[in-house]
Amino acid sequence: MIKAAIVGYGNIGHYVLDALKQADDFEIAGIVRRNVADIPEEISKYKVVSSLGELDADVAILCTPTRKVEEYALEALALGMNTVDSFDIHTQIADLRRTLNEAAVKAGKVSIISAGWDPGSDSIVRTLLQACAPKGITYTNFGPGMSMGHTVAVKAIEGVKAALSMTIPLGTGIHRRMVYVELHEGYQLDQVAARIKADPYFASDETHVIEVDSVDNVKDMGHGVNMVRKGVSGTTQNQRFEFNMSINNPALTAQILVGVARASMRQKPGAYTMIEIPVIDLLAGDRETLISHLV
Amino acid sequence: MIKAAIVGYGNIGHYVLDALKQADDFEIAGIVRRNVADIPEEISKYKVVSSLGELDADVAILCTPTRKVEEYALEALALGMNTVDSFDIHTQIADLRRTLNEAAVKAGKVSIISAGWDPGSDSIVRTLLQACAPKGITYTNFGPGMSMGHTVAVKAIEGVKAALSMTIPLGTGIHRRMVYVELHEGYQLDQVAARIKADPYFASDETHVIEVDSVDNVKDMGHGVNMVRKGVSGTTQNQRFEFNMSINNPALTAQILVGVARASMRQKPGAYTMIEIPVIDLLAGDRETLISHLV
Repeated sequence: MIKAAIVGYGNIGHYVLDALKQADDFEIAGIVRRNVADIPEEISKYKVVSSLGELDADVAILCTPTRKVEEYALEALALGMNTVDSFDIHTQIADLRRTLNEAAVKAGKVSIISAGWDPGSDSIVRTLLQACAPKGITYTNFGPGMSMGHTVAVKAIEGVKAALSMTIPLGTGIHRRMVYVELHEGYQLDQVAARIKADPYFASDETHVIEVDSVDNVKDMGHGVNMVRKGVSGTTQNQRFEFNMSINNPALTAQILVGVARASMRQKPGAYTMIEIPVIDLLAGDRETLISHLV
Repeated sequence: MIKAAIVGYGNIGHYVLDALKQADDFEIAGIVRRNVADIPEEISKYKVVSSLGELDADVAILCTPTRKVEEYALEALALGMNTVDSFDIHTQIADLRRTLNEAAVKAGKVSIISAGWDPGSDSIVRTLLQACAPKGITYTNFGPGMSMGHTVAVKAIEGVKAALSMTIPLGTGIHRRMVYVELHEGYQLDQVAARIKADPYFASDETHVIEVDSVDNVKDMGHGVNMVRKGVSGTTQNQRFEFNMSINNPALTAQILVGVARASMRQKPGAYTMIEIPVIDLLAGDRETLISHLV
């Protein structure tokens, strides 16, 4: 049995608990929460602690905000635990991998980083399609679905009480932003909309800002991907590939985190992204049986 | 530079040569052909030999019929070369892997088997989708495209002069067989059609047999895949995934063989299927750069 600690019990942490309970090869070592006084009913049967050092775990599943990943990963490695995370700032992945690789090698442990669906499972498909047709272009189209980053950016704008930024795919990697806002009293939609459209997160995309009575009423956790590659195998043009998914966002992220937590037990010490580990390692069960069924 | 030998110069061998010429990290060690007297113009500049032992290669890319793979792979391993193949008899993959694993470990070399598009790249997608939604069903729908196995089965039937069996996807893994035949003189279409439909290859599928003047005129090398999974991540139902491709069949097989030939240089001694190797190993180039672009 693999002993897993859940670090952070927000949206993702909640779904990770769900996925761990469904996995026969895991036991739940406990949950790390900042506020151990406030324990939701569904986790009252588990050990809930304020610090990772209080748990005996093989792997720490980091369900913290992305900016906290490095700090918690370093702590877990120093405690002799593997770590997995869904760090999602694309431009900083190579740096995080380098930092955690050094710490992981030193600790004789394993970190698998940026393991959600994008970065994550999408990265595996992107890499595979690049191998299938080395020349060509891959477009990853997201949505329709909520963009966390864009939503946070809107919330930071003066006059915005609540916000939701939806990503709408227009093809060839171009996206429309549909922004739903509740305004504080005394603010005008057109002024707030102008500020949103001027924000770097929105300035280069087609953006529409719509005032609603309740942002909460228009929110859902669904998301989607449409990845397309047209390219060349050898000298043969016009090879076409497409990957689509329509999914509950935190549920898929959590399921992948549990898969990579399992895979972390099967790698040599070091830090890895998902494209650096064999996909079979994500699955439980006898290896020869998996090969017979899946290859 | 990786020195690659092409073993067998049929359809796949021809496309492997194309793909190797496009790959900057390979050089062509030579081509193994049964008949070295008959050398097509486009390979006259390469070393063409009748036996693998005459070549100095790091990896032998086996482009022989599937039934010859084991024999040639064992020969290559004994000569101290890695091997890659696109062995496609699904029920015998586990056995081939076991046999070649023993020989590869003994030789300190690597074999990557069943590396085409199905088995092969499709196997990676199937495995990944299983990890994304562990409960559920994956359907792999093939076509429209030529089935080599079914075409060979038709050709073996009395009265058939030339044949083409096309696979048409009907969804949920169910396929229609469209069989185009030229008949020998004195044979009736309805009698031949009855024999085809009674053959184990066709008995459980909807099969239509059509007589044509020229089978050659209705042949093309295009093929397709539509893989669908609907399943459960954690306890969240209705997660939907789809993978499609529309490709030149031998060109894609050849491109993947070249990718796994590269990957074979990066594995520990032993035999592997594609789901057991990291997808990044299929690609040429600096690892950190690939991670920055693809993850």
